[in-house]
Amino acid sequence: MTPSGKAEDRFIQRYFGPLANNSEALGLHDDAAQIAVPDGKSLVVSTDTLVAGIHFFHNDPPASLARKALRVNVSDLVAKGSTPKGYFLSLALPEAQLRSQDWMSDFAVALGQDQKALGLQIMGGDTVMTKDVSAITICAFGWVPQGQMVKRSGAGVGDLLYVTGTIGDSAIGLWARRANLFGLDELTGFEQQLLACLTEQERTQLELSYLEPPTNLPAADIVLNFASSSMDISDGLSGDAATLSGASNVGMEINMADIPHHAILAPHLENEGVRARLITGGDDYQILCTVTSVRSKDFEIEMAKAKVAVTCIGKIVEQTGVRFLDGQQQELSVGANGFDHFSD
Amino acid sequence: MTPSGKAEDRFIQRYFGPLANNSEALGLHDDAAQIAVPDGKSLVVSTDTLVAGIHFFHNDPPASLARKALRVNVSDLVAKGSTPKGYFLSLALPEAQLRSQDWMSDFAVALGQDQKALGLQIMGGDTVMTKDVSAITICAFGWVPQGQMVKRSGAGVGDLLYVTGTIGDSAIGLWARRANLFGLDELTGFEQQLLACLTEQERTQLELSYLEPPTNLPAADIVLNFASSSMDISDGLSGDAATLSGASNVGMEINMADIPHHAILAPHLENEGVRARLITGGDDYQILCTVTSVRSKDFEIEMAKAKVAVTCIGKIVEQTGVRFLDGQQQELSVGANGFDHFSD
Repeated sequence: MTPSGKAEDRFIQRYFGPLANNSEALGLHDDAAQIAVPDGKSLVVSTDTLVAGIHFFHNDPPASLARKALRVNVSDLVAKGSTPKGYFLSLALPEAQLRSQDWMSDFAVALGQDQKALGLQIMGGDTVMTKDVSAITICAFGWVPQGQMVKRSGAGVGDLLYVTGTIGDSAIGLWARRANLFGLDELTGFEQQLLACLTEQERTQLELSYLEPPTNLPAADIVLNFASSSMDISDGLSGDAATLSGASNVGMEINMADIPHHAILAPHLENEGVRARLITGGDDYQILCTVTSVRSKDFEIEMAKAKVAVTCIGKIVEQTGVRFLDGQQQELSVGANGFDHFSD
Repeated sequence: MTPSGKAEDRFIQRYFGPLANNSEALGLHDDAAQIAVPDGKSLVVSTDTLVAGIHFFHNDPPASLARKALRVNVSDLVAKGSTPKGYFLSLALPEAQLRSQDWMSDFAVALGQDQKALGLQIMGGDTVMTKDVSAITICAFGWVPQGQMVKRSGAGVGDLLYVTGTIGDSAIGLWARRANLFGLDELTGFEQQLLACLTEQERTQLELSYLEPPTNLPAADIVLNFASSSMDISDGLSGDAATLSGASNVGMEINMADIPHHAILAPHLENEGVRARLITGGDDYQILCTVTSVRSKDFEIEMAKAKVAVTCIGKIVEQTGVRFLDGQQQELSVGANGFDHFSD
């Protein structure tokens, strides 16, 4: 299981050795990594698995896959107020991909570029050759001052609710990706109509949001210093807002008109179906957090300095549940409630 | 990806909530765990993935699978001199298993029992429903005094070479498992002949060694205090001995007659084919380590006190490579050199 076979060792050294130029990973030559956590810090750890056919398409570019696998984990840590330091990569891939120098080297080079841009290091991992399974698990870690990780719980009545970036790019990006891979005919009429209104370039831009999630790295310290509660939006704003408010045992009022969407989609926001999709679709990897009203101006100033776009979309209220309000403060009903992997 | 869907949250709480009664895992209600690493300690981290059809059979008992997934990681940490503290579980399983209350609860209950016996805690994870993929990744951690993780490198000329437990139980156990699942006809004549000499009870005992690896938990502190180099044997003694000596840039002389094997197999050790299989088969999860000769007696005494069987099987020499010697100190050639996941 561990990389002790000579061929596996060569494989690891060829592709991932160049990414492990730190003493803690022991050049990926050992069974474990040894990591010095600074005194007074708590470790923050998150793990996410991507499976082909569920989280990505079998022929997604390996470079995009590498970035997505890393970023969905970085996103979790940043939303907890922790700057990522390192990660472990478990690759279960079919022989065709493991043996393809092009595939593997596209994957490893992109991973190397992204870890450099994001300031973290590969520390170890595991490689398994499978018959047909493609599953990529990353377990990433960072630290925070002892006990200060920003939790989902912690939102207080009167706090303001913020999101970073724009919401729903990825939801429409997924339509563009499917159209690109399988043709427009595989989409619903509704999806086709929207895509038909977009230029080729606009579709490609949204598709990229789906393939390669954003990172809000500079936000980590600001979330740590200002947020009363925080999480990343991975299952849709609507569902994740319910999760955050549930964990904090409070309610939320969200002003629909204040939710930021990509400029490309501005002409389509009158369409209620599109709007519902934007707030229930997954894969945003933006931050959803709360800040006390007295600190909100400073929070906005710090985020602006760090060049992270933030928008106040509502507030925390006592009555539990999430309510979406229109311009007249009337409650709107939102059809789907985020996606669920399974129900029972 | 994170457990934010309500149904997924209920699923996690039902099966894994009872395993997370520690404040650091936040009851598995958050996107990340927050872990306090004691001052002056280095974190030691290892990760291993088990994939159905590669590392286990599709219909292996879920309780065995849970124990194996946990123990292969515990084994890595113990061999590094670190007592395991916690782990992250990434489950990618087909709908049929995720929806089977029997399957899931057998898995979770066994995992809970094993983590209790081994003194570590679940800290978080990820659950993905797949079409047909079964992949279980555990990322486990513990700590050691700052910078003192026992590495593969570090063996010095003159050091004695030790193994814990017995070698090759699992290699024959795998034959027994295959015979049990697919019938004797699926085995080679050679394999059938050996199995025919064993009683039903003996086969079951070896099969269990394959399904549920041993743990040498009490050895962790002793390895930390005494071993100059160490690793766990997962790819066969022969191949892993080559790995350890290669990493330490030394050679090894191993006395074939000193290698400890299970008493059940004693009548068959005259058979060279059996012996070769015992030292090249995988999945032993015993410790292979070196100790300076001056400290070897104390090492043996401490291991005896901790009730961990250890056997000196050879010594470290200057000339690189691994040489297996017979009773007359003549070198024997060993056919296979451990198994490799892939070659190039």
